[in-house]
Amino acid sequence: MATHKLLLLPGDGIGPEVMGEVQRLIDWLNAAGIASFETEQGLVGGSAYDAHKVSISEGDMDKAKAADAIIFGAVGGPKWDSVPYEVRPEAGLLRLRKDLGLFANLRPAVCYPALADASSLKREAVEGLDIMIVRELTGGVYFGEPKTITDLGNGQKRAIDTQVYDTYEIERIGRVAFDLARKRRNKVTSMEKRNVMKSGVLWNEVMTAVHAREYNDVTLEHQLADSGGMMLVKAPKQFDVIVTDNLFGDMLSDIAAMLTGSLGMLPSASLGEVDAKTKKRRSLFEPVHGSAPDIAGKGLANPIAMISSFGMALRYSFDMGALADKVDAAIAAVLASGLRTADIKSEGTTAASTTQMGEAILKEL
Amino acid sequence: MATHKLLLLPGDGIGPEVMGEVQRLIDWLNAAGIASFETEQGLVGGSAYDAHKVSISEGDMDKAKAADAIIFGAVGGPKWDSVPYEVRPEAGLLRLRKDLGLFANLRPAVCYPALADASSLKREAVEGLDIMIVRELTGGVYFGEPKTITDLGNGQKRAIDTQVYDTYEIERIGRVAFDLARKRRNKVTSMEKRNVMKSGVLWNEVMTAVHAREYNDVTLEHQLADSGGMMLVKAPKQFDVIVTDNLFGDMLSDIAAMLTGSLGMLPSASLGEVDAKTKKRRSLFEPVHGSAPDIAGKGLANPIAMISSFGMALRYSFDMGALADKVDAAIAAVLASGLRTADIKSEGTTAASTTQMGEAILKEL
Ligand SMILES: CC(C)[C@H](C(=O)O)[C@@H](O)C(=O)O
Ligand SMILES: CC(C)[C@H](C(=O)O)[C@@H](O)C(=O)O
Repeated sequence: MATHKLLLLPGDGIGPEVMGEVQRLIDWLNAAGIASFETEQGLVGGSAYDAHKVSISEGDMDKAKAADAIIFGAVGGPKWDSVPYEVRPEAGLLRLRKDLGLFANLRPAVCYPALADASSLKREAVEGLDIMIVRELTGGVYFGEPKTITDLGNGQKRAIDTQVYDTYEIERIGRVAFDLARKRRNKVTSMEKRNVMKSGVLWNEVMTAVHAREYNDVTLEHQLADSGGMMLVKAPKQFDVIVTDNLFGDMLSDIAAMLTGSLGMLPSASLGEVDAKTKKRRSLFEPVHGSAPDIAGKGLANPIAMISSFGMALRYSFDMGALADKVDAAIAAVLASGLRTADIKSEGTTAASTTQMGEAILKEL
Repeated sequence: MATHKLLLLPGDGIGPEVMGEVQRLIDWLNAAGIASFETEQGLVGGSAYDAHKVSISEGDMDKAKAADAIIFGAVGGPKWDSVPYEVRPEAGLLRLRKDLGLFANLRPAVCYPALADASSLKREAVEGLDIMIVRELTGGVYFGEPKTITDLGNGQKRAIDTQVYDTYEIERIGRVAFDLARKRRNKVTSMEKRNVMKSGVLWNEVMTAVHAREYNDVTLEHQLADSGGMMLVKAPKQFDVIVTDNLFGDMLSDIAAMLTGSLGMLPSASLGEVDAKTKKRRSLFEPVHGSAPDIAGKGLANPIAMISSFGMALRYSFDMGALADKVDAAIAAVLASGLRTADIKSEGTTAASTTQMGEAILKEL
């Protein structure tokens, strides 16, 4: 059995707690001889700043490059609100994404039947919802230069951010979306603001071309990002795969996550290009939720998104799709049994701590 | 009684139909001696392109500059999908906003009690909702330079859009938001992405400073735009006034509009700076909905957003707040009576055409 090297980066807030439940799962998989994972730990975000005055150390960046996959918790919190911009907690995550070339961010928005009533949307609007948002993650306004604040004198400053997209960046994220759609319901909706942004014009043009050239068996639709956002709120089930840029993807995937009523349940995968020689790709897996500093250290955090992110690692990095399916099924079974962490607790269900939830999922497995 | 000069720009799609109902209201106000409006008509968007191969003619721009207020319908449609970028329908609207300095876009998201069930959200989440979104409208990525697509050779192109904000632009939109909050529930939530964008850092800094200096009687909160979007979907009633940049405002105001279930009902006002000498400000009023080419010319369009936009003109440009209140009350009364255009028709209500709805509102007045 091949041994896979994992770098665990728990980060801040509830990160370490939810990561603990992934560690429990890994230990069990190793002990049961189902898989063989070697884990290392590193610091990122505020915890890295506290230790080394950076958002991620060079040593941990090296470990990240050497790992077969990175399992990432969450970063940030009010404690670090006034650290210098360059070393703010988020910078560590952004550097990992950029330096490892993790251009494809997959964010499934799935509504667990047991939780449909937790949504602020009506049950009929979200029951059975299963969308995959494919967000471009290493380009756009996140990384474009210039990105500056200049003092103009007279009490005036000027801030500039730059949205940049090249054809190849749009092509490769398009391919990820079309490939995923082929394994799903065969439909891709591309979202941009071509009526206002030149990057939207190019995005639209390149998606259309890739589709015509390589994927004309898949249905492609285009929507303006603002009306796409509206449609997500009005009738989300019309979507299968949504492909969009870094900033629109940030907004739209968060909104889609909130629709499901299951924010604490949603995982994500960030993937690099497949290496022509090794056939491997760099990858990082993280929950969609944040570091929730207000409940950190209290055993209240929901570990499902984190465990489910590890499930995505099994599927997308280690070709263990069957095991990933079992993890998903175990989560669904535990939810169906009525066990709930505080964030999803409702009348008639049983309260569980972070650890109790992790243990229950493991037992189900 | 002072005579006010209005420029009516019906635009494309359902624009002319819904504008017809505003014209009916104006004629009545004039005839009844309640107000004195002088109206001119102009072309914008696809209809201007069809007539003059531009998205708005210089002549109509001159009329716009001379008018006391502009009443704008909607632009765009598949017919003009492949006209050159510079003369696409939206360019006419963007030029009006920019050249007239209409930096403050006010978008109320109100849930009419009679329509709470039309929302995809649960009634308890949206009933009584009353948010004011204040969107910066003449800056940011909409107008920043460079804004280009460059051919790099080898089949590669590079698209660039630039987000630019200066201190004074953030200050003046902040003041609009704080002033509005003082007349409402005294709370402003500022939204940006300071964890990723330099313009977000400056936005946050300037809002904080304006608040401390001039408005410390108002509550100011900051939220990242992505989690702000989530909160809008999860629990929108926590907000009073939201202030945000041009692009985030585009997305967030559309989402807020959709929450109410009343997209066809929501107006907007775009205001310039108050002239020190004349005490007047340039202004444009338009419905939040688009040109809906699929139902154009069928008498199906809902004229309420257009009429309500004219109501905002009465309030914000002509100091006729009492009359504006009456228009709002007439709309609410007609809805309560059960009259509905096709977009909001539900069981047990009475169907109305565009004209019937306009006439009913007038009769109520
Ligand atoms: C933490 C932050 C930099 C990040 C982003 O904006 O991409 C987060 O919101 C996300 O969506 O992963
Ligand atoms: C038509 C378009 C240019 C416009 C915008 O993006 O501002 C519209 O979506 C709006 O919100 O008024």
